[in-house]
Parts: sequence; C-alpha cells; structure tokens
Amino acid sequence: MGTVHEERRSRLRERCSAAGLDGALVTRPGNVRWLTGMPAAEALLVTRDRAVVAVAHPAREREDGIEERRVLPGREPGLVVVEAVGATGLLGVEEHDLTVTRHRALAAGSGASLVDLGHAVEQLRLVKDEDELNCLRVAGEIADQALGELLESILVGRSERHLAMELERRMVDHGADAPAYPVRVGTGEHAGRSRHLPGDRRVEEGDFLTVSLGACYRGYRSHATRTFVVGLSPEEWQIDLHRAVFAAQRAAREALLPGAAYEDPLKAARRELERHGYSDPLDDGVGHGLGLDATEEPTLRPGEFGKLEHRVPVTVGLGVGIPGRGGVRIEDSLVVRPLEDGGPELLTITTKELLAL
Amino acid sequence: MGTVHEERRSRLRERCSAAGLDGALVTRPGNVRWLTGMPAAEALLVTRDRAVVAVAHPAREREDGIEERRVLPGREPGLVVVEAVGATGLLGVEEHDLTVTRHRALAAGSGASLVDLGHAVEQLRLVKDEDELNCLRVAGEIADQALGELLESILVGRSERHLAMELERRMVDHGADAPAYPVRVGTGEHAGRSRHLPGDRRVEEGDFLTVSLGACYRGYRSHATRTFVVGLSPEEWQIDLHRAVFAAQRAAREALLPGAAYEDPLKAARRELERHGYSDPLDDGVGHGLGLDATEEPTLRPGEFGKLEHRVPVTVGLGVGIPGRGGVRIEDSLVVRPLEDGGPELLTITTKELLAL
Repeated sequence: MGTVHEERRSRLRERCSAAGLDGALVTRPGNVRWLTGMPAAEALLVTRDRAVVAVAHPAREREDGIEERRVLPGREPGLVVVEAVGATGLLGVEEHDLTVTRHRALAAGSGASLVDLGHAVEQLRLVKDEDELNCLRVAGEIADQALGELLESILVGRSERHLAMELERRMVDHGADAPAYPVRVGTGEHAGRSRHLPGDRRVEEGDFLTVSLGACYRGYRSHATRTFVVGLSPEEWQIDLHRAVFAAQRAAREALLPGAAYEDPLKAARRELERHGYSDPLDDGVGHGLGLDATEEPTLRPGEFGKLEHRVPVTVGLGVGIPGRGGVRIEDSLVVRPLEDGGPELLTITTKELLAL
Repeated sequence: MGTVHEERRSRLRERCSAAGLDGALVTRPGNVRWLTGMPAAEALLVTRDRAVVAVAHPAREREDGIEERRVLPGREPGLVVVEAVGATGLLGVEEHDLTVTRHRALAAGSGASLVDLGHAVEQLRLVKDEDELNCLRVAGEIADQALGELLESILVGRSERHLAMELERRMVDHGADAPAYPVRVGTGEHAGRSRHLPGDRRVEEGDFLTVSLGACYRGYRSHATRTFVVGLSPEEWQIDLHRAVFAAQRAAREALLPGAAYEDPLKAARRELERHGYSDPLDDGVGHGLGLDATEEPTLRPGEFGKLEHRVPVTVGLGVGIPGRGGVRIEDSLVVRPLEDGGPELLTITTKELLAL
C-alpha cells in the first residue's frame, strides 16, 4: 500500500503496460497534480519503475516515490524529465495538451517514439474517491457561505465588478485557496447569461441579478449559479421565467443517476422548458464534470455519448433570457449517486427559490 | 486609413504575402485581441481580402471590417472560420499555441496546407503605439494607488492571503478590469521569492514583506514588486540585502536603452550584486515584455539574443533571499526610450526605498 498518489500512478502504469507503452509523459496541469499531489509540478514522467517531475523551484514538501528535477527557464519540462530517465522507447504523450512546437521539441530531443496517450489520465480521474468528494463538499459550502453573507448586505447601487470582488474575498475569508474561476455577476439585461464578465453596471430596483461563483479548496473546484430579483415584488414575467428555469434545472438534476446517458439531463431539461412554454435547444449543454479542473469530463451536451457513473461530480445548470430584459440562470454542483443511496448528492445547497432582495 | 486593428491586420497581410501564404489563422488569445480589439474572440482568419473571427457568443459591439461566426460547443474555432472563407491554399497557423490534437483536426478538416506562422504576430506586437503605452501607464498608476493605500493600514497580524485579496479589490476599485495576474504576498521567510503563492502566514514585527502586483487596464497588464520591513527599525542584514538588490535592479534599469542586448540588464545586475558581496546567476532572468499578455517577448535572461528597441515595455526585477530568513525582491515596469528622450520611462513609480511600516 503506497500513498494515494502512488496508487494512482500504478493505475496509469497498468494502462501504459496494456497499451504497450514504456512510459507516459503527463503535462496537463490537473493531470500532473492528480498523479503527484504537487500543485507546481510542470511535467511528470512515469515509467515501469520510476516517477520523475519537473519543477521550476524545488518543493519544500516532497512527495514519496517521486524524484525532482529543476527546469531552467526556456527549457522544455518534458525533456528535463525524459533526460533524467534516459532511453524510454515508446512514450505516451498528451497530444490534447502539448502544442505542436513542444511536441516537435520532444520528438527531436527525447530519443523516444511518441504516441498519443489520449485522455487516459482524465478517464482515471473521472470517478472520485472519498477525499476528493470531501474537498468538493467543502468547496461547495464555502461558496454557499460567501453568497449567503452577500445577500444580507445592501445591493442596490453597487456595480457587478464590486459584487464579484466581494464574493471572491469572502470565499478566501472562509478558507478557499482561491476562487474556482473568476466570479461572474450580471444584473438587469446581463442577468441569466453564462459568460457575462462583471462590468460597471450597477444594481437597480427590479433587476434580475445572476451570480455565478465557486470556491477552490485544496485544488478542487465547485460551481454554483443563482438568480434573484432586486426589490420587493418580482413582476409576473420574472416569476414565470424563474419557474420555468427552476423546473427544468430540477428535472436535469433528477436525471443524474448511475447508468443514465450523458444526454438524459439535457433532454429532461428541454422537455420541462417546453412544458412551461419556452423553447431552447440548450446547445451549450447543461453541465460538465468538476474536480481539480473547473471543467472536466463528462460533458452533458447534445452529441456526447456515454453513461453517468456512481461518484462522478458534475454541474447541472441552464439559463433562459429575454433580449434586453435579462434572464434566469440556475446551476448546482452534484455527485452522481444511485437512488438507494438517496440519489444525486447536492454540494451547493443555497436556496434556488426566487428571493426578492 | 482604417481603424488601428485594420492597420494591424494589414501589417500581418504583408508578412503573409512576403512568406507566400494565402492566409493566417491566429489562435493565441493575446494575438487575436491585438488584431481585432475583441477580448472574447477565439480565432481569427486573415486572408487577402477578408477577416473572420470565431466567437462563442455574438459580440454586442462589432468591429469594423470583421465578420463573425458562432462556434458551437465542442467545435474547433479554427475550422469554423476556415469554413466561412472556403479554400485557402497555404495557411499559416500558430504552432506554439495549437495543441497537436487541434492541429490535426485543422489539417484534416480545412483542406488547406498548414505551415508554421511562428511568432509573426508577437513580433508585430513588440513595439507599442502611444495608445497601448497609455493603457500601460494607467495600469501602472492603478497598482501604485492600491499599494499606497495598503501601506497606510495596519499590517501586523494580517495573512498573506488577506493582503493579496485587498490589493486585488483596491485595483478594481481604482478602475482595473482585473488584476494583471494573481497578487503575490510573501512575509517572513516567504519574502523575496518570485513565485510564492499567498498563504496563511501572518505578518509579524521584523518581517520582510514582499508584494507583487499589477493591474489589467483595457487588457494591458503592469507588473510591480516591492519589499518593506515591518516594524520601526530594520536590522543590519536587512538594510545590507535591500541595498544590494536596490542597486542591482537600478543598474539593470539603467541598461534599458535602444540597441542594448537583451542580456545587458542581467549582466549589469549581476555585476552590481557581486560588488555588494552577493552572488546569484539570476537564471530566471531579470525581466520580460508586457502588454496584452502578462508575459511577452522579449525575455531578459541568459542565452537570449536580440536588441532592445524604442517603445518596447518590459519588466525589470530581481530578488535575493537568505534561506529561512526571507529576502528582498524589487521589480518595475518600464518603457525602453533613448537617453535624448530622458532614458527608460518608469511606469511604476511607488518608492523602492526600504520603508519600515
């Protein structure tokens, strides 16, 4: 029994061995961290009997079973670890991460034959262990706390940018390493959009206000989005739109069961939107995996084929907007679990009701 | 006379034409933004008579002379713009930006012959125009203001993480789009390091305190690093170390003249450090270009060959530490200018004296 990282590297070795590879060079940052526990390692080479990482600066806390090599500026980190090991024969590399230029330098300098490792490490990372899920639970709680505190303060007159910065600060106050991604705040006509960057627009009475935030805790990243109405009484169109998005997002969440197809949550959400009189193809999908990367596999969007598995954390979210008036977006982080375990586990528990603030 | 972005695209067209290319596919984000003014565009195709960008969501403000195509999730943005134009013959692509996987998809789907465009756009971006320099000046001022305010508050007992978040918030308060990069704060034994991530250590009396921050203003990113002593009277070793780093950084700054070799500032800094009794090869270099990317060409480190040009903005910084006790790091953003124009222009004017806070 080795450390959790040694066990993960053993699983990668088994994959390599089955594929006839002499080693694997891992360069995608989330993959390197998952296999080493070292946030700043730049590349990892795993061969049958060794594991070597390239670091810009030597780590103070060393990980068992890993050798360190220093990368000087301008040097290819992959070559630094390959040179430490010597001849490697057939070497798997991450072609979805390496640029053409880096790949060429490795092919010329490594003396190895390079083949595509594909998403082998991402596949190993898909199902999380209990420690990983605990980190995600804490990340979800931190975001909930930050959002809860913000909602107790006065919002009218404050800019999107200020609200976003305050949420980022509050998450760090509650123990986050950092925000999981830049916090997004949209008010008025910006509300409900998935990729709106916070700007100078200030919150006004009667606005929809959409907040998307996540915490990063020990490297693991949560996602949550909520939409509120500012002022005492939401208008009829706001209540209707919120009801439709709320119902569609709930239907998508309830479809998150082991064995369900990746497209099932999306189809459930579309059906529910239509039942409420809204039509949206949801081309961007309704969710994705999460973990050490803010966006991981699987992707819950049209045309993706695969089946959900027990202990895979995913986001489920969608938004509908009315041009010029804004919209509603609701998103959660959840863990896929079978019904006998209580069904999907919600990591972001802040209310999704239409609060009037 | 077209817009500034049209003129920039004309310069790229001239380069392509001289190299016998029928078009250029630009994918590196800073390059796309420099050529279009559109922060969210994902790829740009420039042919003899057209310019097409791929966007995830249509922009509200359109740029003259540019056609937009929507990218659906999971689609390769480069293919979307190539398909909009049709057959392109010989197409330059950025092999230092494209992953092997994306390059393969383009080669298979575009019908074009792909050749490396290299750093052609980065070369065009190297020398900045007056508008770009103005953005950098504002970015430098914003960081100065944020730092000045922080220094008026009580520091003892506050954590690195809190100080970093406060600086980020203050920069946004003063008009930054965002921090140029995550603010770094190191206190005590962490002081003086270039890549220390802010943690839970709290500021104590007698500590060195190093702060590295930059603002992003209209996309342009400044850098500055300062080191202070916390408490009334710095110790002798702190004064000595600060004096050495201060002198070496000044020597490097003074070597920033048009026509100087990229290695000259580094050599000047090394000489001055030695004169003060410290020896450091400065392997990480003493600076780099800045602009729409936080780190641009040129790189001022050993083994880089080239000459500095008028109106190229660069950072100049270095740090020296004593294991277990911390160190001093000082860094500025400057613009290369000839002596008859007053010599290097300092963009980050906050004092570099050893303040005792």
